[in-house]
Amino acid sequence: MDLECGSEEPAKQGLLARLWPKIKTFSNNVKSEVFEFFTTLRKLGQDDPRRVVHSLKAGLALTLVSLFYYYQPLYDSFGVSAMWAVMTVVVVFEFSVGATLGKGVNRGLATLFAGALAVGAHQLANLSGRIGEPIVLSFFVFLQAAISTFARFYPKIKARYDYGLLIFILTFSMISISGFRDDEILELAHKRLLTVLIGGSTCVTISVLIFPVWAGQDLHNLIASNMEKLGIFLEGFGDEYFKMAEDGESKEGRSFLQGYKSVLNSKNNEEALANFARWEPRHGRFQFRHPWKQYLKIGALTRQCAYRIESLNGHIHAGIQVKPEIRCKIQETCTRMSMESGEALRELSMSIKTMVKPFAADIRIDNSKSAAKNLNSLLKSGLWGDERDLLEVVPVATVASLLIDVVSCTARIAESVHELATMLNFEAVEPLVSPETEPEIVIS
Amino acid sequence: MDLECGSEEPAKQGLLARLWPKIKTFSNNVKSEVFEFFTTLRKLGQDDPRRVVHSLKAGLALTLVSLFYYYQPLYDSFGVSAMWAVMTVVVVFEFSVGATLGKGVNRGLATLFAGALAVGAHQLANLSGRIGEPIVLSFFVFLQAAISTFARFYPKIKARYDYGLLIFILTFSMISISGFRDDEILELAHKRLLTVLIGGSTCVTISVLIFPVWAGQDLHNLIASNMEKLGIFLEGFGDEYFKMAEDGESKEGRSFLQGYKSVLNSKNNEEALANFARWEPRHGRFQFRHPWKQYLKIGALTRQCAYRIESLNGHIHAGIQVKPEIRCKIQETCTRMSMESGEALRELSMSIKTMVKPFAADIRIDNSKSAAKNLNSLLKSGLWGDERDLLEVVPVATVASLLIDVVSCTARIAESVHELATMLNFEAVEPLVSPETEPEIVIS
Repeated sequence: MDLECGSEEPAKQGLLARLWPKIKTFSNNVKSEVFEFFTTLRKLGQDDPRRVVHSLKAGLALTLVSLFYYYQPLYDSFGVSAMWAVMTVVVVFEFSVGATLGKGVNRGLATLFAGALAVGAHQLANLSGRIGEPIVLSFFVFLQAAISTFARFYPKIKARYDYGLLIFILTFSMISISGFRDDEILELAHKRLLTVLIGGSTCVTISVLIFPVWAGQDLHNLIASNMEKLGIFLEGFGDEYFKMAEDGESKEGRSFLQGYKSVLNSKNNEEALANFARWEPRHGRFQFRHPWKQYLKIGALTRQCAYRIESLNGHIHAGIQVKPEIRCKIQETCTRMSMESGEALRELSMSIKTMVKPFAADIRIDNSKSAAKNLNSLLKSGLWGDERDLLEVVPVATVASLLIDVVSCTARIAESVHELATMLNFEAVEPLVSPETEPEIVIS
Repeated sequence: MDLECGSEEPAKQGLLARLWPKIKTFSNNVKSEVFEFFTTLRKLGQDDPRRVVHSLKAGLALTLVSLFYYYQPLYDSFGVSAMWAVMTVVVVFEFSVGATLGKGVNRGLATLFAGALAVGAHQLANLSGRIGEPIVLSFFVFLQAAISTFARFYPKIKARYDYGLLIFILTFSMISISGFRDDEILELAHKRLLTVLIGGSTCVTISVLIFPVWAGQDLHNLIASNMEKLGIFLEGFGDEYFKMAEDGESKEGRSFLQGYKSVLNSKNNEEALANFARWEPRHGRFQFRHPWKQYLKIGALTRQCAYRIESLNGHIHAGIQVKPEIRCKIQETCTRMSMESGEALRELSMSIKTMVKPFAADIRIDNSKSAAKNLNSLLKSGLWGDERDLLEVVPVATVASLLIDVVSCTARIAESVHELATMLNFEAVEPLVSPETEPEIVIS
């Protein structure tokens, strides 16, 4: 035996030696992945510390309702049904007040209606005797599950009451089926409703009282920051496009030119936030029936503008092809159009953020429109000399045309922000724009 | 009394007469809304009959698991715990196999791990005496709820294991808290796991066996149909743009030009389907580790193309401004570029649908590229005469430039479809393209 062991030892060591590099790579991979995981986690917390607070709030809510189990007098009145309160907290507690309220109300109302209906179904099924009862009950369960499941496809219902229908199916099935074994289903339904209400109200209370996260506020900020992102792109575009042409490559990092990309796909996020916001009560500067639809409208127009900017971004490298003599003729006007629309968007964003009437943006919009007119007259005046080679002109003409589109998109956004300002009675503060930015018509 | 009644009667009638129009309007409104509701419901069913089938399947699954309550031998072994099976069916049964499987596996594994951990936590808490126990338990519940809730913000976890973490919190809290009142928590944990598995496997079985809806197939079709929508737009664009210019208005309905709009916002839908599809086993032409990422890549490129088309669509009315002498020079080439890229996209879409190598599309792409070259030489050749007014040229130049963008987008899409074809060993079938569509270089 000893001999055998002795002869195996070197073989084992040889195997280990051969496997060692692989094991090392593997363990390094695992190490770097674990490191990355924790770095991402820390970044998640740093980017939005409300996430950390939310996690602690969820822990607190759960610990609070578990008192129903620990504290004897409370346990005496609810018994094991207290578990429903725990379950309610786990599934209802969401990041924003609106989402929590929406789920809570959905769950509460659905439990109430489904409980009442299930008690009715149980009474009906009772009439059909011990053998008929499960058949009648099965029929009811099948029918309501099929109808409710189908209703969940209805877009308006899906947006606001999807969770309610799920709980409706759940509660109806649970109580009507339980009725077959337990005749005290009135008490069961009553206890379930009560514990769901306790769980739901715990969630809502904690969600509203401790560092509340309002979906409405988030939507408000999202719309404003999306506009700002487009503004940042446009402010930088002119310089980037023409500097590209001069230097052949950009000196600065171009990350500020990529910020707008998230705007392209923000539709679902905006709609979800608006759906949550509708549940929220008055808070801060937001009323219960705040015009969230107008925010969605502004968001849609902003996205329209982002699509134009995406096309513009595709041409940012084409600046290099433009001949200097053509460039110098339109550089100023194009940069001005882009800059002024960009600043208009930033002013509009600021106007939404501070809830002040967008007077400052109006001036920028007028400037950008007059720059667009300038460009038109430049193009008309034929100061292109004998430039017969249209191929040289096409890239510039495209950028000019896209910028004209952007100017009109910006004007439409400004219009809808004005509508919002009227709806919400934004404060009227005189714009603090220095006279040098007054529209100046360049006659060339 | 009689007198009083008599005097009230006419007053009542007067009130009724005054209210009657309002009541009528109200009832008409309600009628039309109810009518609209049912029309939409019928349309939902007609658009996708799988929705009706899904609803019936959900009803069936629920009715099946409710047998655990009705049938005495089954009830004897599970008792009221059978309710967990009912709950599992309600929350796990989803539209597609992938979503159902994903939720089922998440729920099963989360219940297993959370149950085991909760039993451990219960043993630990037991050591600290009757007074210390609730404190230790509360601490554990708080800790795991906070950590798990925070982990749900992690993007990769959110995409695939969000539901699992929810169930983890739920099961851990439920079993560890129950342990305080009931010492047979091993049995509780065991029963919960078993009933969850029964419910989950019922869902998965019904979902797979009865008219299965595969998320992978849906993603496959969505990617193909999105491409087709862009193709339809491009095929119609040339005619529409130049006909607009001729007639002043379009004769046909323009609904076919609006189909592409849904592509702009399809990102979330595609990602959700890909997440579900990853759970799905081999089915039909799809393997377990099908390259779903490649589909997402194709989808992203298609969206890039859709943004260009959105810009093009904004210029469709500008065709009217183009002077006839300019138009006739480029109409043929532009229409050809648009038509050929459109047909290329349709061929690519067809290639994905039928899983045949996209040879036919390659020819179209070559055609569109040679048309783009043609356009370039047209622009270069200066056959614009003495057209000094660049303003006349800008709209045409923009459309031409956007079309050139579209051609290169299409080429990129074709490339990624080729990659997919290689990954999946698409069938190689000789293209059936008639010779008349061979690239023809117009020398002008």
